[in-house]
Amino acid sequence: MKMYEHGGNVYDYNIEMIDFSSNINPLGVPPCVKKVIEDVVLTKYPDIKYRELKTSISEYIAYPLKNIIVGNGAAELIHLFVRAKHIKKPLIPSPAFAEYERAVKLEGGAPIYYRIKEEEGFKLNVSEMAEMINEADSVILGNPNNPTGQPINHEEIRYLLNKALELNIPVMVDEAFIEFIYDYEKYEVISYVKEFDNLFVVRAATKFFGMPGLRLGYGVGSSRMILKMEDYKEPWTVNAFADMIGREIFKDKEYINETRRYINNEINFMLNELKKIDYLKVYETNVNFILLKLKKGNVDVLKERLIKEGILIRDASNFKYLDKRYFRVAVKKHEENMKLITALEDMKWD
Amino acid sequence: MKMYEHGGNVYDYNIEMIDFSSNINPLGVPPCVKKVIEDVVLTKYPDIKYRELKTSISEYIAYPLKNIIVGNGAAELIHLFVRAKHIKKPLIPSPAFAEYERAVKLEGGAPIYYRIKEEEGFKLNVSEMAEMINEADSVILGNPNNPTGQPINHEEIRYLLNKALELNIPVMVDEAFIEFIYDYEKYEVISYVKEFDNLFVVRAATKFFGMPGLRLGYGVGSSRMILKMEDYKEPWTVNAFADMIGREIFKDKEYINETRRYINNEINFMLNELKKIDYLKVYETNVNFILLKLKKGNVDVLKERLIKEGILIRDASNFKYLDKRYFRVAVKKHEENMKLITALEDMKWD
Repeated sequence: MKMYEHGGNVYDYNIEMIDFSSNINPLGVPPCVKKVIEDVVLTKYPDIKYRELKTSISEYIAYPLKNIIVGNGAAELIHLFVRAKHIKKPLIPSPAFAEYERAVKLEGGAPIYYRIKEEEGFKLNVSEMAEMINEADSVILGNPNNPTGQPINHEEIRYLLNKALELNIPVMVDEAFIEFIYDYEKYEVISYVKEFDNLFVVRAATKFFGMPGLRLGYGVGSSRMILKMEDYKEPWTVNAFADMIGREIFKDKEYINETRRYINNEINFMLNELKKIDYLKVYETNVNFILLKLKKGNVDVLKERLIKEGILIRDASNFKYLDKRYFRVAVKKHEENMKLITALEDMKWD
Repeated sequence: MKMYEHGGNVYDYNIEMIDFSSNINPLGVPPCVKKVIEDVVLTKYPDIKYRELKTSISEYIAYPLKNIIVGNGAAELIHLFVRAKHIKKPLIPSPAFAEYERAVKLEGGAPIYYRIKEEEGFKLNVSEMAEMINEADSVILGNPNNPTGQPINHEEIRYLLNKALELNIPVMVDEAFIEFIYDYEKYEVISYVKEFDNLFVVRAATKFFGMPGLRLGYGVGSSRMILKMEDYKEPWTVNAFADMIGREIFKDKEYINETRRYINNEINFMLNELKKIDYLKVYETNVNFILLKLKKGNVDVLKERLIKEGILIRDASNFKYLDKRYFRVAVKKHEENMKLITALEDMKWD
């Protein structure tokens, strides 16, 4: 099975692009990073147990080290969950991040898809989805979901977790983008790990802290779940830079709060402006990216035209249940967002 | 299955250690690294296809990009080979690097072991081993082999490759340490990839270039083999630092040649000195580490005593067919090697 197309692939183009295709913190890297890099020791292996890195994450999320696993981005942990738990038939509300499906197929499995309804603004109907859970060996979902940008209230996930617990099947919740939401506490389920030992929560440090080049993610689960996953983990997948930088970034409360304030203001501005464009249908969101639908034209033409203006969007047509009318854009710096909006406003169809 | 014990785990000790337990270039990182680090861009994803990194490796090994795959150290590529080729029953001459076995067991397989004979100085008897190949679905071997330090002449591997080709089974040769050998051309089989499309060669950039903290490895195989492995690969496992540094290090011929000269001189010095110590049996080698056997005492006592002097050795008893008499030491800086030799000379048994 081929490597899937992802956002962030600016390397296919010869000119400098404003990259709206990858959902990365536009405020840049936290100030601590420059100093840390100077002190990184490359001549030793990283601590294979990542004790100091996990200690820093432990302080950030208020779980002991035994509940934490670190990985080469969220991607490693998604694949690892699928391998360690021998996931063959997960229920995946879709459209969804393609690596869930890819991980399962590489394990020789085949997901069951619950189709999230466009007519409901791509809001996940949890109770309707839960009716399909009997057929599944697990549940995998993004919260907020990518590419739809829809978060799920944590109480709805609790309902799902209880259903899954009755069936004794694991649930992975991918919270890679949740920290971008201003009132993220309404949605996050990390606190449920204490209650549900069938729950595994995945987080990406590198998106929120503006460093997709760094590759750092972490997962939270019961100590039993984490031990099982460590058994399957390849050694030293987090390199010395990611290890050392990861020890500092979670302490930077100012960066963290400023990011949420910024995204909250900017997403509201963007939604407002985009809604004024008559050929676009805009799906509400409170995270750092927006799914849009073209009422006219198609995304190939749109993408081509925008590339000429140095703007890269994410063609969303390779997400399950979406087609050549859909695309996704990230929240970038205000002047960059303005440039995108102006380019979209100026575009003529037919 | 638990994560295996490896060398390089200095984090279990509170004091600064001279680490003879991990086989890393003692000359430190190449001079280009400092400059490269300053220019690394973290705000973008690495190129998911690693085109520039592969181009640099391509120039180093004289193979086109289509024959190259990059990974998070050699470890990722070892696990990936096993997964992509569904290896269940490889023939592994042993003692050997533990991740071969671990990768296979995680896939639900069980290796067949050929026992390398201590009485032959742990030199691999290739033709005798080849008699077992009919039972296997693949061959995995280290050249030079870890922990025994024995290289295999490339013509002997050719014999094995032909046998494997007749049976239509793949062969992985792990050349993680081969560049440390002064006359490595006598041993390396990278040039055989052109002839044998069942051959996959793994290399570790980080050991030879003194940067185990960086996590960079690469593999060479037929374009069919590489495509298959890319299908199974997780995205972006090589982070921006490893990507950018990896583009420069292979160009540093001076560092490369100086390393081989240094290791060649120093290994001969160490072998000479160690052979004078009457309670030790020393296995000949021309690579950057040495396997030793205690004629008296045991490695737990030895290790404990040396730790008190700030010296960390590799207890080799967890390698298959070895026991509490065996340990491994790396070639370090001359004054460090002197310190080890003196400490071993001064040790009294009984």
